[in-house]
Amino acid sequence: MTTSTARLPSALDRGRELVQPALREAVEHYLGSDMALVARYHHGWTDAEGTPTDVWTGKLVRPALTLLSAQAAGNSSADGTPAAAAVELVHNFSLLHDDIMDGDTARRGRATAWTLFGAPSATLAGNALLTTATSLLLDAEAVGARSAAASLMSATQRMINGQATDIAFEHRDDVTPAECLRMAGDKTGALLACACSLGAELAGAEAALIGRLHAFGEHLGIAFQLVDDLLGIWGESGRTGKETGADLRVRKRTLPVVAALDAQGSDELATLYFRREPLDEREVRRVAELVEGAGGRDWALSRADHHVAAARECLAEADLAESVRAEFLEFAEFMTGRRF
Amino acid sequence: MTTSTARLPSALDRGRELVQPALREAVEHYLGSDMALVARYHHGWTDAEGTPTDVWTGKLVRPALTLLSAQAAGNSSADGTPAAAAVELVHNFSLLHDDIMDGDTARRGRATAWTLFGAPSATLAGNALLTTATSLLLDAEAVGARSAAASLMSATQRMINGQATDIAFEHRDDVTPAECLRMAGDKTGALLACACSLGAELAGAEAALIGRLHAFGEHLGIAFQLVDDLLGIWGESGRTGKETGADLRVRKRTLPVVAALDAQGSDELATLYFRREPLDEREVRRVAELVEGAGGRDWALSRADHHVAAARECLAEADLAESVRAEFLEFAEFMTGRRF
Repeated sequence: MTTSTARLPSALDRGRELVQPALREAVEHYLGSDMALVARYHHGWTDAEGTPTDVWTGKLVRPALTLLSAQAAGNSSADGTPAAAAVELVHNFSLLHDDIMDGDTARRGRATAWTLFGAPSATLAGNALLTTATSLLLDAEAVGARSAAASLMSATQRMINGQATDIAFEHRDDVTPAECLRMAGDKTGALLACACSLGAELAGAEAALIGRLHAFGEHLGIAFQLVDDLLGIWGESGRTGKETGADLRVRKRTLPVVAALDAQGSDELATLYFRREPLDEREVRRVAELVEGAGGRDWALSRADHHVAAARECLAEADLAESVRAEFLEFAEFMTGRRF
Repeated sequence: MTTSTARLPSALDRGRELVQPALREAVEHYLGSDMALVARYHHGWTDAEGTPTDVWTGKLVRPALTLLSAQAAGNSSADGTPAAAAVELVHNFSLLHDDIMDGDTARRGRATAWTLFGAPSATLAGNALLTTATSLLLDAEAVGARSAAASLMSATQRMINGQATDIAFEHRDDVTPAECLRMAGDKTGALLACACSLGAELAGAEAALIGRLHAFGEHLGIAFQLVDDLLGIWGESGRTGKETGADLRVRKRTLPVVAALDAQGSDELATLYFRREPLDEREVRRVAELVEGAGGRDWALSRADHHVAAARECLAEADLAESVRAEFLEFAEFMTGRRF
């Protein structure tokens, strides 16, 4: 997850302490030995031979939010651990498959699993993680287990649908900003909405609280995607980990680009963006100018602000302890680089 | 599913009448539009453009067994419909992924989904079916919903593990018959065990009944795999739909072959089977002779009989109506071509 601020919410460290052991335990308990080998590597716990390593394995933002949602329901964060691990497992299921589908050979500075274990084994390992996520919730001793598992499946279905729509967009040059926002809601928003509410749902919280946390997460997810897309065009690589213009070079149908293409007089942009030949560096800069000139940047910034405001409102309406609300807001600022 | 007898159990027709509409409804209700297109094609309901077709879409053996298991618990077969559809969806999830992993271009005389929609879309459609299977059970209004969903996940995890082990076997020339039987138990037995018990579990049946039906299905699954492997070497193509020697031509590590390779004096067989160059027809016949000479055929037949007997015993111990028991036995005979 790319972010534009360096200050990490303190809940991330606390979250990792609970979630990392739970993730490891789930992999060892539910997966067969061949699958566990791939899963351990993918999570960064071992190298491809199975030798323990200690590499950076992501910030675990989603599970930290899930633990907070358990606290929002008046429970301890530990009560949310199965839900937090389940959300992270679904996220990693999608990463394992995404890397194969996109043909990506590196993730977080390491070779992707399919390049080392083969696409079939990485596909199966992804399937095994999805299955484990569901088992983890169903085996949890919590009143909301069945309901939480059903919600996780709904979110997963929406995420899959968003991925499929994203693929379908690659063959179209008439995608509208509204369609693209809906896709982002499915692909990114659904699992984040689930992450922000699943701990509360597992604890058997009231529907109103679950609904507000869910809506908060959905808006946060879309705002995050908009900011991520902005960084993929105008980001400063040193600060964000994302190279300036990276998404333009691979002609991604990101939100600012789709908005610009949808605007009047975007012929030069369309010609450059939809031609077969690669763009040189001068052309990448020109595309960025054209997207900005057509209002794509302003549109994305204003949509991000809209979803940030909507997320804030959902959180304001939710009945939870002020300290937990403050932590949710800290996450939201961290993920979007916008003041909440 | 390849079988060696032509007489179809009458429960198959009754099963299809309940399960086909439930499958269609599940696909329309849970899947997004892009995924539904792939799923409808894969199930044989439409062509690749989405135009309705009426092609042979498999016998639906697994879901018919699941409906019987609901009856075994004293319920109507209709009560087992969500469980039956869920089992079939998991089966189709595995077929969609298997075809990609194996690079198979045809299934039941039609182009496989990935060849028409691309591997990414077919992968995602498989994921969508697995997710739908779980949702279907969790959304069912039945006392055993949570427990049934957990069992389906265990079976799926074992199936995935069996597929992974099968892939690992391709890189080994020292696989033992015991390992191969265990793999068949995971890859084929686990889902069939689930199919034979999930209707009862969804209905909230007693653990003893669920356990016996489960064990019956597991033995039946392994017996079926042994018979299927025998037919893949010595089957008569007219009667079974499987070409004589088909599995030998692609050097599959099937059970009779692994048993023969494990026997004393199998050097000629090993040399032929593990060499890089393809086998000509004379060599395929020679391999079949060598497998038989080394006792691979007799071993597989005797193991099949063992599992048939064990399955029969599990069923005899189960507390269920005689008419339902008779239908289970009819299925077992149909699937293995052995007298039960």
